[in-house]
Amino acid sequence: MTDFRLTPLAASLPSTVPFVGPETQERARGSAFDARLGANENVFGPSPKALAAMATAEQWMYGDPENFDLRTALAAHHGCTIEHIVVGEGIDGLLGYLVRLFVGPSDAVVTSDGAYPTFNYHVAGFGGTLHKVPYVEDHEDPASLFAKAKEVDAKLVYLANPDNPMGTWHDGATLTRALDDLPEGCVLVLDEAYVECAPEGTAPQLDPDDPRVIRMRTFSKAYGMAGARVGYAIAHPELIMAFNKVRNHFGMNRAAQAGALAALEDLEYTASVLAHIETARARITKIAADNGLKTIPSATNFVAIDCGQDGVFAKRVLDALIAQGLFVRMPFSAPQNRCIRISCGTPEHLDLFARYLPLALKTATEG
Amino acid sequence: MTDFRLTPLAASLPSTVPFVGPETQERARGSAFDARLGANENVFGPSPKALAAMATAEQWMYGDPENFDLRTALAAHHGCTIEHIVVGEGIDGLLGYLVRLFVGPSDAVVTSDGAYPTFNYHVAGFGGTLHKVPYVEDHEDPASLFAKAKEVDAKLVYLANPDNPMGTWHDGATLTRALDDLPEGCVLVLDEAYVECAPEGTAPQLDPDDPRVIRMRTFSKAYGMAGARVGYAIAHPELIMAFNKVRNHFGMNRAAQAGALAALEDLEYTASVLAHIETARARITKIAADNGLKTIPSATNFVAIDCGQDGVFAKRVLDALIAQGLFVRMPFSAPQNRCIRISCGTPEHLDLFARYLPLALKTATEG
Repeated sequence: MTDFRLTPLAASLPSTVPFVGPETQERARGSAFDARLGANENVFGPSPKALAAMATAEQWMYGDPENFDLRTALAAHHGCTIEHIVVGEGIDGLLGYLVRLFVGPSDAVVTSDGAYPTFNYHVAGFGGTLHKVPYVEDHEDPASLFAKAKEVDAKLVYLANPDNPMGTWHDGATLTRALDDLPEGCVLVLDEAYVECAPEGTAPQLDPDDPRVIRMRTFSKAYGMAGARVGYAIAHPELIMAFNKVRNHFGMNRAAQAGALAALEDLEYTASVLAHIETARARITKIAADNGLKTIPSATNFVAIDCGQDGVFAKRVLDALIAQGLFVRMPFSAPQNRCIRISCGTPEHLDLFARYLPLALKTATEG
Repeated sequence: MTDFRLTPLAASLPSTVPFVGPETQERARGSAFDARLGANENVFGPSPKALAAMATAEQWMYGDPENFDLRTALAAHHGCTIEHIVVGEGIDGLLGYLVRLFVGPSDAVVTSDGAYPTFNYHVAGFGGTLHKVPYVEDHEDPASLFAKAKEVDAKLVYLANPDNPMGTWHDGATLTRALDDLPEGCVLVLDEAYVECAPEGTAPQLDPDDPRVIRMRTFSKAYGMAGARVGYAIAHPELIMAFNKVRNHFGMNRAAQAGALAALEDLEYTASVLAHIETARARITKIAADNGLKTIPSATNFVAIDCGQDGVFAKRVLDALIAQGLFVRMPFSAPQNRCIRISCGTPEHLDLFARYLPLALKTATEG
């Protein structure tokens, strides 16, 4: 037994991982999955221009710690200035920095029960107290979230729009109106990881100088670059500047910086990917219907399928799909955990899903 | 004026960057540098096999959060188990996690005055109290460091071997003996970023289960992959496991994981790069001598040149080199700041340095 003098907070934390990776499961089962439909990765992949930019990047050089070129392009894309934008190691990395800036022992934070667990991991990791409100009809609910934030004097409140794991969304105007009830001194962490997949108008029209909101975006979903780890946040320049207090200034991969820049500019390719995603969503919905199951309407690159019973049953369906060779995941909390969550795969991957689902349902029913 | 409710610690921190990047300087001067000799990047670059692995990585997938394949190869390379190894976003990222695990407000940490500033950045960032001891004859000094650690009851003590920015080193046996005086409950953070460039025997022979030391290694220097951001640490499994409490589990770039694995295995290429580095060190030493300047013997991929006067003079030499188009840096603290620090460039880059140095010295002298 050793005696490392960790901080009391660090000593109290579990050595957990928010998500077990598919590779870990593959090593445990001794074979590769037939398809990865569990992490909402975008199998259609990055723009060929992004791939070319990454393949030719000069990896002997450190990346620009200011991410200047990428931030300049993002500012033009969003109609703001580069002072409104910070780039980081995925939204996960940025959430960690944000929580570190705001949350100390016993500071209050609000999220929805069953929403993104990596945010919760960071809140726990900095000693914050997490308050959860239920989803309302499979939607994260701004009214409940902001009311709870007021009640507990929260410093941060998390809302994903569209939501993960359900795929539901609010239109931007609804969110903008709801902001009237965000308590003063509380910042809304608006996770828009999937917003490029959503209908026009899902992203609220916000003044980038609005100090009430920090928006999180990523190149992992619509842009197909999950492996590259490029996220960014848009917020008031004073808040953006605060990230420079704590971030890993040389944390960004140089090829990823170049790839994200090229991906952002390839509008035609992104449009084609979004069309593939829409087709796949419809296909998943049809496969579910063919098996007598309902789906939750989705504005993301995945679809939650209601297995029609409780979480125990859905878990049995999930396990049977995994046993057949599909990497899939499901929501963590009731009542959302009556569903399984299927990422938008290629037609071939969804053929496999169509083939495996009936047996999985049969196994679960007989289980 | 907004009113973000940062933690008291975060509010107290400056929005600084430990190092200003060369790209920032290039934007300010309005033109690119002729050569990058300031960040100890390895201009000879990654193994072609590493480049190929990175170019063909499936960037639509998240990287394996366990870094299993790379850790397995590293364990074989170092004769330990994968439980002794954590992979992270460069040594910078790992230093941040380590400091977070150990250091809270007013916890004591010890380093050398003028040693790696990013470590200091993290200590300040978590509210620690940094105690500094002077270099001894341009070497970080284990005896002074460990004595100070005992005096202030330090939780961590930092020592780079070889040292940056001076390039000096201790042989491994000296360090192993010095460890007898490391106070109980204090962990030595042994930064071995440059150790592959050093003479045989520079890395101490340590039992990987030794709880007194955590070693930090990187693919940024000898392996020429600074842009990829791959560092790793070797330590007691209990300490390694603690990183899972706080790290960004999905923080690693998937291509970088594959590239590092390929780079590690290409021993022949690494040997050829180390030969280039040795040649470049000799050339830098000769250029200095041709200008009447002494150099500090180096076990790294850079050479510190003693400009023969004080820090003000060396800064004038540095500024003159920068003005002529060379990206170079210098030590921060006296008396090391009588030097400028030149990274091992290509022969062409060092031709430029040979051409620019006489004028820089003349300019500095006429100041």
